[in-house]
Formats: sequence, structure tokens, C-alpha cells
Amino acid sequence: MPKPSAIEVVAETETNQADNSRRRFLNRMAQLTAGGVGGIIANQVNASTPGSVEYAVPKDPTKVQGREPSLDKGYGTRSQFETETRLHLSAPNKQVSVSFTPLENSRGIITPSGLHFERHYAGIPTIDPNEHQLFIYGLVDSPQKFSIDALKRFPSQTRTHFIECSGNSYSEWRKPTKQSVQETHGLTSCSEWTGVLLSTVLKELGVKKNASWMLAQGRDASSLIRSIPIEKVWDDAMLVYAQNGEAIRPEQGYPLRLLLPGFEGNTNVKWLHSLKFTDQPMLSRWETSHYSDLYEDGKSRLFSLTMDAKSVITFPSAGMHLDKTGFYEITGLAWTGQGRVKSVEVSVDDGKTWQKAMLQTPLLPNCHTRFRLPWEWNGELAVIQSRCIDETGYVQPTVTQLIAERGLNSFYHQNGIQSWVIDKDGYVSNTHRT
Amino acid sequence: MPKPSAIEVVAETETNQADNSRRRFLNRMAQLTAGGVGGIIANQVNASTPGSVEYAVPKDPTKVQGREPSLDKGYGTRSQFETETRLHLSAPNKQVSVSFTPLENSRGIITPSGLHFERHYAGIPTIDPNEHQLFIYGLVDSPQKFSIDALKRFPSQTRTHFIECSGNSYSEWRKPTKQSVQETHGLTSCSEWTGVLLSTVLKELGVKKNASWMLAQGRDASSLIRSIPIEKVWDDAMLVYAQNGEAIRPEQGYPLRLLLPGFEGNTNVKWLHSLKFTDQPMLSRWETSHYSDLYEDGKSRLFSLTMDAKSVITFPSAGMHLDKTGFYEITGLAWTGQGRVKSVEVSVDDGKTWQKAMLQTPLLPNCHTRFRLPWEWNGELAVIQSRCIDETGYVQPTVTQLIAERGLNSFYHQNGIQSWVIDKDGYVSNTHRT
Repeated sequence: MPKPSAIEVVAETETNQADNSRRRFLNRMAQLTAGGVGGIIANQVNASTPGSVEYAVPKDPTKVQGREPSLDKGYGTRSQFETETRLHLSAPNKQVSVSFTPLENSRGIITPSGLHFERHYAGIPTIDPNEHQLFIYGLVDSPQKFSIDALKRFPSQTRTHFIECSGNSYSEWRKPTKQSVQETHGLTSCSEWTGVLLSTVLKELGVKKNASWMLAQGRDASSLIRSIPIEKVWDDAMLVYAQNGEAIRPEQGYPLRLLLPGFEGNTNVKWLHSLKFTDQPMLSRWETSHYSDLYEDGKSRLFSLTMDAKSVITFPSAGMHLDKTGFYEITGLAWTGQGRVKSVEVSVDDGKTWQKAMLQTPLLPNCHTRFRLPWEWNGELAVIQSRCIDETGYVQPTVTQLIAERGLNSFYHQNGIQSWVIDKDGYVSNTHRT
Repeated sequence: MPKPSAIEVVAETETNQADNSRRRFLNRMAQLTAGGVGGIIANQVNASTPGSVEYAVPKDPTKVQGREPSLDKGYGTRSQFETETRLHLSAPNKQVSVSFTPLENSRGIITPSGLHFERHYAGIPTIDPNEHQLFIYGLVDSPQKFSIDALKRFPSQTRTHFIECSGNSYSEWRKPTKQSVQETHGLTSCSEWTGVLLSTVLKELGVKKNASWMLAQGRDASSLIRSIPIEKVWDDAMLVYAQNGEAIRPEQGYPLRLLLPGFEGNTNVKWLHSLKFTDQPMLSRWETSHYSDLYEDGKSRLFSLTMDAKSVITFPSAGMHLDKTGFYEITGLAWTGQGRVKSVEVSVDDGKTWQKAMLQTPLLPNCHTRFRLPWEWNGELAVIQSRCIDETGYVQPTVTQLIAERGLNSFYHQNGIQSWVIDKDGYVSNTHRT
């Protein structure tokens, strides 16, 4: 009798094989029980969590052959024990949607592509890269269209940058509301992007001297169009086709996205389809009714494009529980659209004193920066906060300062200091306002 | 009549929903045809590729609502048009297995976790992180065991490092054989790792002065055990639980891996279960019959742990075709286990002349480094090569030099210069030996 293996696929990604597989698994379990190999029992046979495949768990993995790597058909999945997901919110008409990155479990600075936040106005289009084209026209000497393959032949660049929705932390303007860092700050994510500098492509077709703006539009059904100042176009704008070492994900703009390092998320147009050079901004609805900041006097701040310095403590954060006193490492993320983070300060006493956190190197421009601070919790109520200082000298403000400056009409660009309150029982919540 | 949407799931990862989904899709397609919305047609309704979910492709994505983000249940997948996979090889008894990263399509330096190479001796164990423990014992003052949660409470570090199997490029010792860079060099990958420095943990339990080696063993059925010099333990060894921003993948050692930056792959013990401090190496079979380099005179080089400087051109590479003359960007990866890459030189004339390639910053120690060189192909036969020089001054050798030094008995640590030949018709192959 051959040595039995307890490792069988319980649920697979391939529809046609799953039923067979489950049958095989049940048969195998019956064999195992009959054969008296009682130690080898599947103790978790549920439906698989998103992004994973469920396997039986042996009591002693050193006594049974592991699963065949080929079961994943050449593209691996995460462990079945990892269950964190993006939090999706949809409007009733399902046309407007948003999802938040689970920052509370973030490690390092890279956001897994499967957990990158999303903000869509007409869902995610499915686009065949072989027939997709980028049109560049308007105030240029020779309008051209480029296939994805053509863009990949240009000299390439790789850069790690965050993208943050300017609506990130919008819920926290008037008072603390959300009880997780995923909900308060989960509209920022960070990836390694590869593509071609837009300036490299533009040298091929000649931009006229009177071109002062570029209108970028995507190929979804939302008709989102944004006007980009020409200075940004020449500075560091990129056409990106890769994210974290593989093709850019569908929900991030597959097969092509405009990347504007440090600019608010929606200007990094997804499913990029056309770039039109003009001598004035379009003042599209994405620049007037959306993504502008309405002051108390009825005037609006338009084209508030650069994301200001911001930070948040991801551990400990709201919804967590510290089950004992003693050592904890406070950690979080800081970022700025103005270049590099210069320092991050952390307070554990409600802002009375501040200590410099350690910053994980390398420090990259317009990139998430991981900060850490060792901390001994003494079991007393503690209010913990972080503030980011960027290389321009700008200091992340309190929400009170933000409100004094901009009022309460708008909810974009909320980069105020976030407080988490740890009570005497170790429960962490979002109830404190500086 | 409600506006029809052509975007329906054709295949889903969840078994129970897939049949319903396909039925819904077929119904919807029938409705669309009946309704005369002829422009909206699914032109790709195949089984989904690994790591993706298949959706119908509308002719004009700007005219139909995109798919709901919530369809992915909170963890995204890649595009259905992206089909690159790890190449799996299995021995007849299925106990020994290997898979290769598709480097030909690599971008930047991060390897997507789903495409990280694998080398297993007893398959992939499924381990419940809640009951997994790391035992540290032997020549220590107080032996201890640590849960994963306990290890996560220590001060953490994030570092981006390559891991290369010392058998990488083994097939190319005697003569060029494999016709893709995936097969010649695909046993190296690079990730952002997060965990705790082993030295930080060891300070808790006190390592005795006579401890000169550490034996590391994993929790799979292979009993793989490796002896690590104590200097490496104190220098930069890490216990890692995260990879590319999320939990380490099952095939990379979930829930815990030993990371030894720059050391040969197998010493980075996966599913790490125990660390025993001793005053001598174990000389396990993984250190004598495996992973030692047999010289011509019958003697063996043991503990050849550090990976030497190496590089390979990933584009253009064997199996590709250049369909026209003109501009191409030659690009590839370089790395060394001796710290940082100092420079990479590229030859396009069979080694007669060498040019310095551009290196993508930041330059990180023991990390893949992306290099690039602009090139005009004139349509003539060309032999292209790269060589890596690391910060110690070591220069990547030719294979001929390697053979002169070590003979032909061993196949580990083949870091020779790789040549690709581009013929007059633009076909790229691996037929040339320097």
C-alpha cells in the first residue's frame, strides 16, 4: 500500500477541477481514517479566503509529503490563514466605488498589488492590451498613437512611489469617526512602478511652446479627464505599464497608467487613452465639482494637486487590543508629495512631548516611509500620535489647524495628525481630537 | 429596460459560484445579442490563466460599465491577458521539485510573490501559524520557544534582498543548453522582506561564547538542516514573516523563514522550526552530498555559502525575436552576495568592447540591481553579454575561467558570463560560449 498523503487540494481556482478535487480529498480522508493514520486530519476545510487556496492541515508537517508546487499552475497564492482584504464600499447605483488598503497589517513600504486601494467612477474596464493605444495630440508638431508594445521599446525607468486619493481621511474632518486605520487612512498605497518617462516619449513628437496644460483621459466609462500643468509633464510624469515586477493590475489601470509622483490619486489617470496638449486647463467636472476645496467664503481652491506631508501610526491602531503591558514597537507610515520625508516624530502623551522615530532606509522621494519607535506601555491611558516633517520643512498640521485654515466645507486633503487612544484595558480607539 | 452590462464574470475563483456565473454570463450574452447591442461581444471566453479571473472584453470599454471591484472579494488578481508563469519541474517521485521565475518579463527589481522561484525537497507544508513555534536551544543560557505573535512583537526591520539557489544556471556548465533566461537564470528572485534581526532575539536568551555554529531546520518532511557560521548569525541574519508587504508566501516558508542576505538559497531555511547553537557544523547531507562543489581531484569545497557577483541580460534573451532593426533598450539584472553592485558592463560585440550600463537607483546591498543600455541593432549577427563588478572589486568571470578553476564535476555556483546570440533574422538564442 502506498504511503498516504494528507495534502490534497480542497478548493482550487479552476472551476472544472474543483469538484473532482473535493471528491478526491474526501476519498483520501476516508482512506486515511480507514488506514488508521489518525494524526493526519484536516482541521480546516472551509471555503478558501480571497487570494488563497485551501489545503488540509496535517498535525505534524514533518511526517507527511507537502503539496506539489505544480498545483498552483505556475502562479502562487497566499496562505489560507491570511484573510486581510480590501474593504469595498459601493454607492447604491454601483457606479461609484472605493476600496481601502488594510494598513493595520502593512509591513515595510510595498503594498501587495492585490491589496492596493481603489477609486473608480464606472467600475474596472477589461482592456485587451494588444488593441489598446495611447493618442497624443493637440499642441504638438506631429500627433501620434502608440501601442503598448511601442511604449515598452522606449528607455524605461523604475521608481517606487505612493499614490494617495485626495479624499483619504475625509471621514475625519469634523470629528473622529472610523474605528480602523484601514478606513481612516486606507486610500494610500505604494508600489514599484516601471514605465517610460513621459518626457522621453514627447521628445519624439515635439510639444509646441504655447502648450501649458495636458489633458489626460482614461478608457473607462467615467470620462474622467484631468488637466495637468506642463511643468509636471516635463518633470517626472511617467507612463507606467508595470507594478511590483509584473504588469500593472486591472484595477490600477491595466495596461497603462499615467503616474504623477506626489500628485493626488485621481490625476494618475488609469487605463490611459489620450493626452491632449492645450494652452489652458479644461476645468472639467473633476476639477470643479470634484477634487476642489470649497472654503467657508464660498470660494474654491482649484488644482490642489500636490499631496502634503502626512503620517499615521498603523500599530497600535483603532480596533486593536494590547493584551499585556510592556514592550511594543510603535510603527507606521509617513509620506509627502514634496519629495522625501525628513523626519517623523511620535508622541505617546497626547502631544506634550515628541520623540524622533527611526526611519527605514532607503528614504525615497514621494514614497511611503516606514517609521518605528520602541515603547513600553505602562498600562495607563495613552494617546499616541505621529507627525511627518518633509524635506521642505513643512510640518504635518493638527486637524484643528487645518479647519482654521480651510473650514469645514471640503473634505479633500485632510492630512491632519491622527490620534489613537489606548485605554487602561488595552483597547485602542479613534476618539480623540487634537 | 435596464441598460445591459457586458461585464460579467466568466470564471471565478470560488468553486460554488463559477457555474452560476457562467450561466449568468451566457444568459447575458444571449440578452445582448437579442437586444441588438452587437458591439458588446465577449471575444475571449477561455479558461482563466493562473492568478487571474476571466471577464468578457467589450469592444469599447468607454461605453459600458466596468466590473464591480467587489467581485474580487477584497484581494485582486492580475489581468487575464498576463500569462507568464513559473516553470515547474518535478522529479518522477514528485518529492523533489523546482520552479523558475520568468525573468524575461521582469521589470524593476521586485519579483511578484506569485512568481518567486521555488526549490523543495518534500513539497510545500501547510502550517497553521497559530500553533507554529520556533525553538532556540543548544549552547544558549536559556533555551526558549517563540510563537509567531511573539516574534512580531520584537523591533522589526525591512530589507530588500535577492535569494538565489546555488544551483542557478547549473545547466550551463558544460555547454549552453537552455533556450530561455527563465531556465538558465530563473532560480533567483528578489523581495522586500520584513522581520526581526536574529541578533535582537538572541540577546534575550544569551548565546554561549563557545557557540560557533547554528543549525537551522525547517518544518517540512525533508529534514533539511544547515549549519550557519556564527558570524553570519550576528551580522545580518533575520527571521522574516513578511514578503512584499504581506505575510510570507507558503512556498517561501510561511509562517517563518531564516533570511541570510547573500547566502545560497537553501541556507535561508523555510518553515523555520528550530535553531540549535553548537561548537561545530553538523556536516549534514545537505552540506556534503548536496551543496558542496566537487573538484577534479576528488576534493570538495564545503560551505561555499556566499553567492558571487552575477548578471544576465533579460531583454533581449533566448527565445525572443527582434522583428525590426533600430533602437532597443538592453536590460537585465545584476546581483552579488558581497554587498552592492558597483557597475555592470555590457558588450554587444562578443566581448571585444564593453560599455557601462546605467544602474537603477537606489543601489541596495545583496539585492537585484536593474541595469539598462540603449542599443541600435543594425541587423547583423550580434553576441550580447553582461558582467557584474561588485563593491569588493570582484569581476564576474567567464564560464571558461570558472571551469579552469573548478573543473566540471560540480554544478553549483555557476556565475559565468551569459551570452545571447542574435542572428541576422532577429532570432535570439543561447548557442555561444565565451
